[in-house]
Amino acid sequence: MLPLSILRHHHHYRRHDYLRKLFFSTASWEPVYVPLSHPSYMIWASNTSLGKTLVSTGLASSFLLSPPNRTPHKFLYLKPVQTGFPSDSDSHYVFAKVSSLASRHNLSLSFLASNHVLKASVSNAITDLNFYEEKRTGQNAPFSELVCQTLFAWREAVSPHLAAERETGTVEDSVVVKTLENCLRSKLESEAQFERMNALCVVETAGGVASPGPSGTLQCDLYRPFRLPGVLVGDGKLGGISGTISAYDSLRLRGYDIVAVVLEDGGLVNEVPLRSYLRNRVPVIVLPPIPQDMSNDLLEWFGDSNEAFNCLKEILLSAYLERMRRLDEMPKKATNVFWWPFTQHKLVTEENVTVIDSRCGENFAVYKVQSNEFMTQQFDACASWWTQGPDATLQTELARDMGYSAARFGHIMFPENVYEPALRCAELLLEGVGKGWASRVYFSDNGSTAVEIALKLAFRKFCSDNGFLFNFLKNNGAEKPIELRVLALKGSYHGDTLGAMEAQAPSPFTGFLQQPWYSGRGLFLDPPTVFMCNSLWNLSLPAGMHAENIIEKEMMFSCRKEIFDKSRDQFDLAGIYASYISSQLLEFSGSEGSLHVGALLIEPVIQGSGGMLMIDPLFQRVLVNECRNKKIPVIFDEVFTGFWRLGAETAAELLGCMPDIACFAKLMTGGVVPLAVTLASDVIFDSFIGDSKLEALLHGHSYTAHAMGCTAAVKAINWFKDPQTNHNMIPEQRLLRELWDEELVQEISSHPSVQRVVAIGTLIALELRAEGLNSGYASLYARSLLQKLREDGVYMRPLGNVIYLMCGPCTAPEICRQLLVKLQAHLEEFSIVKEHQVSIKN
Amino acid sequence: MLPLSILRHHHHYRRHDYLRKLFFSTASWEPVYVPLSHPSYMIWASNTSLGKTLVSTGLASSFLLSPPNRTPHKFLYLKPVQTGFPSDSDSHYVFAKVSSLASRHNLSLSFLASNHVLKASVSNAITDLNFYEEKRTGQNAPFSELVCQTLFAWREAVSPHLAAERETGTVEDSVVVKTLENCLRSKLESEAQFERMNALCVVETAGGVASPGPSGTLQCDLYRPFRLPGVLVGDGKLGGISGTISAYDSLRLRGYDIVAVVLEDGGLVNEVPLRSYLRNRVPVIVLPPIPQDMSNDLLEWFGDSNEAFNCLKEILLSAYLERMRRLDEMPKKATNVFWWPFTQHKLVTEENVTVIDSRCGENFAVYKVQSNEFMTQQFDACASWWTQGPDATLQTELARDMGYSAARFGHIMFPENVYEPALRCAELLLEGVGKGWASRVYFSDNGSTAVEIALKLAFRKFCSDNGFLFNFLKNNGAEKPIELRVLALKGSYHGDTLGAMEAQAPSPFTGFLQQPWYSGRGLFLDPPTVFMCNSLWNLSLPAGMHAENIIEKEMMFSCRKEIFDKSRDQFDLAGIYASYISSQLLEFSGSEGSLHVGALLIEPVIQGSGGMLMIDPLFQRVLVNECRNKKIPVIFDEVFTGFWRLGAETAAELLGCMPDIACFAKLMTGGVVPLAVTLASDVIFDSFIGDSKLEALLHGHSYTAHAMGCTAAVKAINWFKDPQTNHNMIPEQRLLRELWDEELVQEISSHPSVQRVVAIGTLIALELRAEGLNSGYASLYARSLLQKLREDGVYMRPLGNVIYLMCGPCTAPEICRQLLVKLQAHLEEFSIVKEHQVSIKN
Repeated sequence: MLPLSILRHHHHYRRHDYLRKLFFSTASWEPVYVPLSHPSYMIWASNTSLGKTLVSTGLASSFLLSPPNRTPHKFLYLKPVQTGFPSDSDSHYVFAKVSSLASRHNLSLSFLASNHVLKASVSNAITDLNFYEEKRTGQNAPFSELVCQTLFAWREAVSPHLAAERETGTVEDSVVVKTLENCLRSKLESEAQFERMNALCVVETAGGVASPGPSGTLQCDLYRPFRLPGVLVGDGKLGGISGTISAYDSLRLRGYDIVAVVLEDGGLVNEVPLRSYLRNRVPVIVLPPIPQDMSNDLLEWFGDSNEAFNCLKEILLSAYLERMRRLDEMPKKATNVFWWPFTQHKLVTEENVTVIDSRCGENFAVYKVQSNEFMTQQFDACASWWTQGPDATLQTELARDMGYSAARFGHIMFPENVYEPALRCAELLLEGVGKGWASRVYFSDNGSTAVEIALKLAFRKFCSDNGFLFNFLKNNGAEKPIELRVLALKGSYHGDTLGAMEAQAPSPFTGFLQQPWYSGRGLFLDPPTVFMCNSLWNLSLPAGMHAENIIEKEMMFSCRKEIFDKSRDQFDLAGIYASYISSQLLEFSGSEGSLHVGALLIEPVIQGSGGMLMIDPLFQRVLVNECRNKKIPVIFDEVFTGFWRLGAETAAELLGCMPDIACFAKLMTGGVVPLAVTLASDVIFDSFIGDSKLEALLHGHSYTAHAMGCTAAVKAINWFKDPQTNHNMIPEQRLLRELWDEELVQEISSHPSVQRVVAIGTLIALELRAEGLNSGYASLYARSLLQKLREDGVYMRPLGNVIYLMCGPCTAPEICRQLLVKLQAHLEEFSIVKEHQVSIKN
Repeated sequence: MLPLSILRHHHHYRRHDYLRKLFFSTASWEPVYVPLSHPSYMIWASNTSLGKTLVSTGLASSFLLSPPNRTPHKFLYLKPVQTGFPSDSDSHYVFAKVSSLASRHNLSLSFLASNHVLKASVSNAITDLNFYEEKRTGQNAPFSELVCQTLFAWREAVSPHLAAERETGTVEDSVVVKTLENCLRSKLESEAQFERMNALCVVETAGGVASPGPSGTLQCDLYRPFRLPGVLVGDGKLGGISGTISAYDSLRLRGYDIVAVVLEDGGLVNEVPLRSYLRNRVPVIVLPPIPQDMSNDLLEWFGDSNEAFNCLKEILLSAYLERMRRLDEMPKKATNVFWWPFTQHKLVTEENVTVIDSRCGENFAVYKVQSNEFMTQQFDACASWWTQGPDATLQTELARDMGYSAARFGHIMFPENVYEPALRCAELLLEGVGKGWASRVYFSDNGSTAVEIALKLAFRKFCSDNGFLFNFLKNNGAEKPIELRVLALKGSYHGDTLGAMEAQAPSPFTGFLQQPWYSGRGLFLDPPTVFMCNSLWNLSLPAGMHAENIIEKEMMFSCRKEIFDKSRDQFDLAGIYASYISSQLLEFSGSEGSLHVGALLIEPVIQGSGGMLMIDPLFQRVLVNECRNKKIPVIFDEVFTGFWRLGAETAAELLGCMPDIACFAKLMTGGVVPLAVTLASDVIFDSFIGDSKLEALLHGHSYTAHAMGCTAAVKAINWFKDPQTNHNMIPEQRLLRELWDEELVQEISSHPSVQRVVAIGTLIALELRAEGLNSGYASLYARSLLQKLREDGVYMRPLGNVIYLMCGPCTAPEICRQLLVKLQAHLEEFSIVKEHQVSIKN
């Protein structure tokens, strides 16, 4: 379709390293630390040459030179990326112009200004330049100070990505981010003597908001880890309304807050429609027309603009105070109005509350107050309740798609309608997680509702297969023909609504205290589990299972792969499992005539909430086969395990057998909005076909198949499975490569504090050795360990004495490795403390 | 803070009519009809002067003049808004330039070009100009044709909103939209002889994507009802990457599809980062540098650009075919993969499936094939399962906020954390729907889960108040101390998960066929209802209630207000209600010693799914008081009724009494994503405080308090309650004005086909007179009536023989009136048909 001659440079953007550079944030993971002790702002513009540097200069001058300044003030101007250097140097301009303005002001106070260029393009490399200049005004020791810095400078006056490519080669995003972080920290944190409002920092970007930085990453993406609030320099010319609004949209789509828009008066009153668009919530400040005559030194213009810049300065200072006030009050307010789930509020003090300002890919930005206020990053190692998949790039793309979907579809009611995201999502699911068996998609909102639907489907099918439905309809539904029960495993969890709870074995979640209506309508089997201990995978059989003669070979595994090996079907153990299951079923249905097992419901491979237990896949396979033989419909609850959580697209794939019905949720939308599905085979669907609406499945939720959720699911699933976007995906195999360093996992499994380890896909879980009240769901045993890890940038949550790290399907193995190293180190520390506590007790 | 001298024209944007103009789409509602028989595209640009008109010209020339054209071709160029006229006339330029190119081509085929300017600014008004010019090439009857039209033209070369303001006064959006629609229809539909691919239309915008149109509405919003796919003319100059990306972002944020980006070669290879950004999914076409010399006639440049324009043309044609293919196949695919809720699939054929291409505020864009393919609008009068609130402007703002929220927060797990949208949402709820009684917010995903949580809260409180908890904990939770039941009303509905179902009286939804585990754990009372019939409000008492001596005055109401009047508390009826309730409670608890009513659960005022029944508010008030006296916690299920659905922020407000617990969902997010809350008072919360985590409420869902949902809720609630954004809001009262024309409602209530009417807030419901199988939930009685209404642009869904219109809190009363008029007309038609059917039967 597209002749190559037209798509010039077509070859260029196919180059894989170029794609990599643009699409992926760098793998190394060091939390970014942003000081909040003083206000810092980004200066953005909707295009080049709109006067960003004039705004910075005006601000600096207003901040430093406006009387009365009774206390010392410090203004920090940072220009991370400069091109056209040295003839263009914005930091030099600010330095020189403010100095001139200062001497003009004829201030009695003394004043120090400096300009520092750190690194510049010299002989085909980016090199330490360390150019430094300074000026003093007044005789006394300097009172106020202007510090200007250029971080990286290139010669050619083109976009930074072009200049870098042509002159020095790319500078990695992580290098720019780290350098900027260091400048912010060293210049702002050292100023303890400066009160909050007596230092002000601006970081001036290059070109427009979405102009590429030195690596090709757009600047609005490059600086996102800081998420500094911003000033947008807009366009007062013809067409400027549109450009300004679009630039604002782009910044909002990256999660930025803009506190003011500034634009030059172009005689077109562009500020009027801009204010309307911004609904008066973001002030729009108009600067006098800028003289075009190049010889004009603008000193007079700055004089005329004085009031405007004072106004802008006031806005920046008060927005900062407002932000800090809100951050400071959040923990108290939260403890007053929230009712957190699974939380004993008596145990939560304001100090325990984590203030999360934003997330960027896998990292939370967490607000902290220690000696100073700052924002730091924590890796979301609980994947926010196992929902998270996006890296920073996917998050941005999801944001764009979510905005598009809301604007195009909002929400559209589902029955008898079709709209693109729902159809595309259903198609993707059937050709992905449902491949080979499923033919229908039933949408709902969360795992719990998906399971309730699954049970309804299974029961109808079971009754229809066994003639109960016929009898029931014949007697006009006068009475319940049978009592239906579900076959499930002890320790499993399927959600918190009553129907889903009835399918789990009695537990702290199901007692009268929690759910007075729970009765436990199931036959609950005790399953065999596998885990790693001392570097070896072991099999642990439940008490009631007689397996005295099983040879060791069947009970130990040298690697995880062996556990899943289909050759185990031939082992004696398979027979033992089968007869155990048969006898349990027989015993159960024998007890009462009217009781029937109408569904099998399992979490394949891993039981999540139950403590990250890995169930012997051979056992689950045998279980499925036994149920098939008895015409009991098989439900897989893959709410936790689906979408590469365990390395394969589904856990069913790992088990090597298919269900009749399966539930998915959590990771399905990539982790932005709730959406769940229950997939079903044709024969299940057919049992709801009839002449009357009353035979249809009368279950639904208002937002069934909502466009936003379906859009996110389509985006996320495609992203995860494409090796171009997910570097963990092994091409052709639809499997993730190994994310957890094997050696480290083995070491951890050999640690004396560790009872067992399970590492598979995006998950590594460990049970800490604990006894009595220290074990189980309500245990606070792991609390001190997790506290240390959080301080070290790893946000984890325990399941009692079981702790885990969970990453996304796209997380770089190098990051996983760093997480493991931190976990190992703090485990060491934790053991020493615990031993110490024990020795004191003794 | 802001000195007025800086905020120049501050007074300007405070002018209320200006705000109105910018914030609100016009009230009159006429469905927009977009022909799809031939491809039509918008031409957008990221700024002015980037060559939109050159692209239109190049496309026209490629389409009409590229050999071999064996069949007649027609190119339609529309310029809705032109400024700088007549010296600037883009339609004249296209007309003239293509004509020159045609004569240059020396084609054997004959060719007719015309240019038509419809309306222009003449002597302070926008006036019919009807300027027309044409050119013919060749001797024969014209073979191919170029039709150029300017719809509205102003003299001054400034933004259209300024030109209109200065020269003629505003032209309303609806006028621009209707004129454009008429041009598209008259020019494209008349061309039945043209095959799909032999006509091509472009609509060229003015300035940048977000430049204001003649009314001040941004063009990307103005043209949104058409949602034509677009071509974005980008910027090849320095800074152009950013501007192009931002413009693309703005278009996506309005739900547009862009099929190609075109930009002039500026020597900076801007296309490379653009292609990366677009991930190769949107082709980027580069045009040769445009000669800057004004005397250049560009004929040579068009020659050089030929290949590029051919390529662009091919992209447009094939994207159109692809779009039509997908639209055509959607119904079939949908019936193959979807499992719609509440739908008997046997009754749904491909022809019944509605293809919904998008929504714009309250209107669906529905794809239709009749003699020709087209897109038409239907008012979403079922408010997509009662969730919808946004007008078109709120939808756009929600889209922007959703994008921002996804980019800033993604999803963050909730327990022990705080982040801005969740906190702000909780605060807003407590100062709004929970005002005066609630102090805690428990988040979940849908109404059903919110109700399950509410029941858990109520039961715990009841047990704790009555000493059952103490006993239970004393015996170590060994056995269930009591059997808990809920007090509820017959015909009520609280969701489809088992726990919520147990709280509804037996119905088609609860039978063994649907939910084999249902047992109905409630005392279900038969409530008195009120409704309008023959223009009067009547009260209907249930069978078991003895009220023989009640005077007529207490049984009839002249207006709705009387029904809610608190003075009725003094009526005899109140006493009769109280004793009825007491005796039922006594009878129930007497029957079995271990049974206790632990919660009251009602839908206040209106029972939605049960058939839009209005329950006598006096009865519900008495019921609440009786329960209060007996220390039974009171739950209001306001999932349907909350957030001005019934005209007041809550139905509790209408009842005049407060609950202990209340559930909200649906309209809470404005209608974009699922989110639910259970609000509770302090005393409820306190019954979960204890030393152990096991005493906390162990219920939660992965996306609890997800940032997207909370962001949407904050936006929507603020929007609904602000008279500046919601013109239906009566200032100071927090009540909606009357939306349904009283006279029309009375007329409808007197119609012989109508059994009863309920009109309140955003709802008007009517029960059609029907008997036997024609009544009840599974009835298909209303089908033909609703089919006619859909064809007339009103999308409704029935509840059996109950039908309803539902608008949003912001829908203009004039639109409601138009809906009522249509309903009335089709009701007339329906009656005649039904009578006819009856007379045939007899």
